[in-house]
Amino acid sequence: MNRVPDSELVLVPGGSLITATAEEGRALAITMARHSIHNFQPDLDVLIGGRPTYSTSPDSLIAVSQVIALEFATIAAANDYWRS
Amino acid sequence: MNRVPDSELVLVPGGSLITATAEEGRALAITMARHSIHNFQPDLDVLIGGRPTYSTSPDSLIAVSQVIALEFATIAAANDYWRS
Amino acid sequence: MNRVPDSELVLVPGGSLITATAEEGRALAITMARHSIHNFQPDLDVLIGGRPTYSTSPDSLIAVSQVIALEFATIAAANDYWRS
Amino acid sequence: MNRVPDSELVLVPGGSLITATAEEGRALAITMARHSIHNFQPDLDVLIGGRPTYSTSPDSLIAVSQVIALEFATIAAANDYWRS
Amino acid sequence: MNRVPDSELVLVPGGSLITATAEEGRALAITMARHSIHNFQPDLDVLIGGRPTYSTSPDSLIAVSQVIALEFATIAAANDYWRS
Amino acid sequence: MNRVPDSELVLVPGGSLITATAEEGRALAITMARHSIHNFQPDLDVLIGGRPTYSTSPDSLIAVSQVIALEFATIAAANDYWRS
Repeated sequence: MNRVPDSELVLVPGGSLITATAEEGRALAITMARHSIHNFQPDLDVLIGGRPTYSTSPDSLIAVSQVIALEFATIAAANDYWRS
Repeated sequence: MNRVPDSELVLVPGGSLITATAEEGRALAITMARHSIHNFQPDLDVLIGGRPTYSTSPDSLIAVSQVIALEFATIAAANDYWRS
Repeated sequence: MNRVPDSELVLVPGGSLITATAEEGRALAITMARHSIHNFQPDLDVLIGGRPTYSTSPDSLIAVSQVIALEFATIAAANDYWRS
Repeated sequence: MNRVPDSELVLVPGGSLITATAEEGRALAITMARHSIHNFQPDLDVLIGGRPTYSTSPDSLIAVSQVIALEFATIAAANDYWRS
Repeated sequence: MNRVPDSELVLVPGGSLITATAEEGRALAITMARHSIHNFQPDLDVLIGGRPTYSTSPDSLIAVSQVIALEFATIAAANDYWRS
Repeated sequence: MNRVPDSELVLVPGGSLITATAEEGRALAITMARHSIHNFQPDLDVLIGGRPTYSTSPDSLIAVSQVIALEFATIAAANDYWRS
């Protein structure tokens, strides 16, 4: 198996939900969602093989965007919405 | 690849979840959801090619509206629901 | 294109999440969900054409009811659940 | 059209999210979800016609149970989880 | 119809969301989700008949686990996350 | 039936939602989601048999990642987002 590097399996990259900006918080949401998937499917070839399927399917992209929204909700709350 | 412009890849346009009005907050929810998708599929031709499919499918439109509801929940909380 | 009237594209009709009653809050949830969809598909003929499909499909109706539940959660929180 | 009675279209039956018990709150969640659907499909014959389909499909029943969970989350918060 | 016993239709078994432990709270989440479904499909034969279908379908099992996560979120909040 | 060991059926492994780090909290989210599924399908052969299906399906992996996001939201709130 062509395994993803260990860094791609870290569940909370950086070890914290706290970020300096909303933009960084959103990027963390995307990374956390991707790393979840890596933990269920660590074979890079399978991951890359599936990319053409989901990335050209509107319904898959909508589903991905839903996961990002959910992860971001948690991260935004953790950061008190970067209000101050 | 006919890549979307960089501005379409900004995850939190304006850099903040705080908006003056609920209407602007809702518009931000839509933009954030769209930009999530751009980050997973930055090829404008693929995005435009998928539009006739999802925009005429009731189930896809319902799924899109669900993502907007989720993004908006976070933005509304960030703005204390524009109560004051 | 037979475009929906502008009023159907307003994202937060009335400009506020605050309503006098729970019943009005729920009605707002439905309107906001519908207007989300109008912003992704503003062609009235397509919207009307899709209605027989989703409105007779139990799974589509269940999905719609899920979106209403999500929108309502935000509106109910905004109104402090109309407790007082 | 064999329209559902008006009482089946009330969005928040009883006009309030506050209930005496958790059991009643859960029943309200079910009623609110059903009445959402009635507002999108008020034809009783269509509703009854769809029942054999969704009520024997495990995936539809799981989807229904998800909507109930979401509605209940809001009602439970409104009632401060019936803690006192 | 081979109806499920009345005890299987109680929406909030025990009448309260408060549990002594997180483990019991999680068990309550599962029971509440199952009882939701019983209220929409109280025929034991249909329920048992559907079991081989959903319990061997990864996607159905994932959907079930999502409902449990949602129910548990409410119960955990009700119990202040069993922090003390 | 080749039943999963009892330890795989514990709903909240460790008996608490409180973890030392965000990384551990995320790992708990994954374990809790997996153990939910074990309670609905405790046959190890069926679980292992389904793995090639869902772990190579982008849509299934996206659905799994959504469940993790939901479980994690609860655990993160329980831990006050590991802020301090």
